[in-house]
Amino acid sequence: MQSFNNLRVNPVRFEDDFNVLAEFGATPDGGVNRPALSAAHLAACDWLLARAEAAGLEPRRDAAGNHSARLECGPPGAPTLLLGSHLDSVPNGGRFDGALGVLAALETLRVVRENDFRLPVNLEVIEFTDEEGTLVGLLGSSALAGKLKPDDLARPRSGRAALLEGLARAGLDEAGLLNAARPPNQLAGYLELHIEQGPRLLRAQAQIGIVSMIVGIASHRLTYFGRADHAGSTPMLERQDAAQGACAFTLALRELVIEHFPQCVANVGMLSLEPGAFNIVPECARLALELRSADTAELQRLEVSALELARREAVRFGLNLEVEAAGVHQPAPLSPLAQQVIGEAAGSLGLSAISLPSGAGHDAQSLADSCPAGMIFVPSQGGASHSPRELTLWQDCLNGANVLLQAALRLAVAVTGEGQLAGMEI
Amino acid sequence: MQSFNNLRVNPVRFEDDFNVLAEFGATPDGGVNRPALSAAHLAACDWLLARAEAAGLEPRRDAAGNHSARLECGPPGAPTLLLGSHLDSVPNGGRFDGALGVLAALETLRVVRENDFRLPVNLEVIEFTDEEGTLVGLLGSSALAGKLKPDDLARPRSGRAALLEGLARAGLDEAGLLNAARPPNQLAGYLELHIEQGPRLLRAQAQIGIVSMIVGIASHRLTYFGRADHAGSTPMLERQDAAQGACAFTLALRELVIEHFPQCVANVGMLSLEPGAFNIVPECARLALELRSADTAELQRLEVSALELARREAVRFGLNLEVEAAGVHQPAPLSPLAQQVIGEAAGSLGLSAISLPSGAGHDAQSLADSCPAGMIFVPSQGGASHSPRELTLWQDCLNGANVLLQAALRLAVAVTGEGQLAGMEI
Repeated sequence: MQSFNNLRVNPVRFEDDFNVLAEFGATPDGGVNRPALSAAHLAACDWLLARAEAAGLEPRRDAAGNHSARLECGPPGAPTLLLGSHLDSVPNGGRFDGALGVLAALETLRVVRENDFRLPVNLEVIEFTDEEGTLVGLLGSSALAGKLKPDDLARPRSGRAALLEGLARAGLDEAGLLNAARPPNQLAGYLELHIEQGPRLLRAQAQIGIVSMIVGIASHRLTYFGRADHAGSTPMLERQDAAQGACAFTLALRELVIEHFPQCVANVGMLSLEPGAFNIVPECARLALELRSADTAELQRLEVSALELARREAVRFGLNLEVEAAGVHQPAPLSPLAQQVIGEAAGSLGLSAISLPSGAGHDAQSLADSCPAGMIFVPSQGGASHSPRELTLWQDCLNGANVLLQAALRLAVAVTGEGQLAGMEI
Repeated sequence: MQSFNNLRVNPVRFEDDFNVLAEFGATPDGGVNRPALSAAHLAACDWLLARAEAAGLEPRRDAAGNHSARLECGPPGAPTLLLGSHLDSVPNGGRFDGALGVLAALETLRVVRENDFRLPVNLEVIEFTDEEGTLVGLLGSSALAGKLKPDDLARPRSGRAALLEGLARAGLDEAGLLNAARPPNQLAGYLELHIEQGPRLLRAQAQIGIVSMIVGIASHRLTYFGRADHAGSTPMLERQDAAQGACAFTLALRELVIEHFPQCVANVGMLSLEPGAFNIVPECARLALELRSADTAELQRLEVSALELARREAVRFGLNLEVEAAGVHQPAPLSPLAQQVIGEAAGSLGLSAISLPSGAGHDAQSLADSCPAGMIFVPSQGGASHSPRELTLWQDCLNGANVLLQAALRLAVAVTGEGQLAGMEI
């Protein structure tokens, strides 16, 4: 009788794939620039499908632009256990975020196929469209989970023009996106390996993170409107300078979160002034606001407080303020069953593991309502991510991939209630 | 004997020209968008030369891209009295700024020619390149005055690429710009009509402003460098958020100027964050800083204080700061003689006039060292400028044009010391 406990991913093949993938959209400082549906992102997806096909898997692309490859290792009509992450990146991001999880999933399917295992489920490695939100955020996974709404496409974070341009480049359309849902009863579960993107695993000296939940995110576009005036001849006290409102808000928001919402985070990641000249008092200041909390009620309280603050600063400087919602993702608890099998998988590999929430959004949160969804974290050196400085030691990448493999096999059994895999023990 | 006192510009022709000129780069909200050496700006200049030629003047373009037209109304070898302003605008500026002065100058030459007057000087209407500083600032007038330095072109406010692109579009080159100086002894003087761009004339209920001096301007580019991190998984207190430094500086700068430099003004007219995404803590914040003072020593003190403040905010948020000078113009007192003839011209027309400094920079400051230079201001409704809201009542425009005409004739006599014009009395 074969023992699954001894199965491991192929470390050389895994690392080779990782290095090749990092060439797509590579930046001079060692990062990658692969915004969703950019040429570099789509080229990386094509490469992934070719690698999957070469491994004997069946490549697919759905109407949401998700790229996947299946292994029909289950009985006829069996549901599918999805394993994956994403290949898009933030602008000038790192090479680990997303890519690691996709390639570990590909390895898992290869190992199962090479050993010619039959499982109670089929397996599918999947790359989800636009996880990072340079267009909409969690676009492909929301579509697959049937959660995408027309409004999400009508007011994307990128603005409409960039979304339509990306869809056209990928040969996608909005109707297809809104009809890309898979029936929940066809989904056996979803597991995702990802870098932590924070400092907690390193601080706890843990090798593996078992993600308990994913924080909620509320995004808004704020625009302060003042009056364009000559910057030389308009006295300081007679200006309606839109920059003052935007800057006062950005500063005070940080204080608000630190003092009153210590469990939350907030970011102003974009800020621009119009018309934009040395000698014109800014008429208009546009900023992108993102708020995160692990708790639904707290996220709402933070949203209310932040927008109240934004309005106070507008009044203080004699400005008008427009607030436009740019997407909300509720906090998502992950499957206790998935957390359990991840813990067992780590234990079977002799790896230390802790449970922790994810401060970052992930595709797993789209699927958490539809099927048992779980996430595995591996340590980020320096806690850095969304940056070329992003680094996870290769041994940690390998540990994570083996935990994914072991957890996937365990989850395949656990979700089907069969107790053990046909002909094998775990 | 003819009396100059009765001469007036042609109000219908003047207004027709003004309305046609406002069509070049017209924006939907009634302003104009004619950045220096843009297609719209160059088209406006071509139109000006055609109008001048149609009026019997000799059109010219010098190696600095200044567009002008001469009337040889003086004796052989006589110096030239320049009358003019500029046809470029700030991005989305107003239709009066610059345009008014150029067309009033054109009218002055037309009236002198139509009356076939001989003067002790030749007259030239001139449109100076890039007054507004979307490229370098006072580019054409500095070049003509022999003040332009290679360093001004090496580090332009626009950045090098935009400058080179503009020069190429206009068929200009840097060598030409640096060799476009006219000998001061060929310059009899310079007079410029301009809108005030501030609220003081209206408050004083004065029809005409006699500009006593032009404030100095120091411009800098400031860049705060922090660390790009994931905006979800990086705790607030562990960030090096470049936006915080830039915003704290922008806010505190306003307080500094109001409290400690009440006679000065400061502006942060551009601000941008990189890499620029909802979910990335900003690594880099770039801002454009402009400081103005009527006093050379005070401008230096303000510069020192502002940059010290910028560095303090960098330290406070754990950031690095780079400061790059982007041009300085020293405060420029205008010619007492020019102020005197402008006052006499206003008086001869029955217009109320006050003396005031200019908070805005103007081409007259480039020429103030080379020849008697003077400026005439007319009221700006609401004090607005550098904005489509810019408005000067047409009667005020007409008043200003007639003051320019009368002042030019008076200055032509005064600078040549002839006491009166041949065959005429003033």
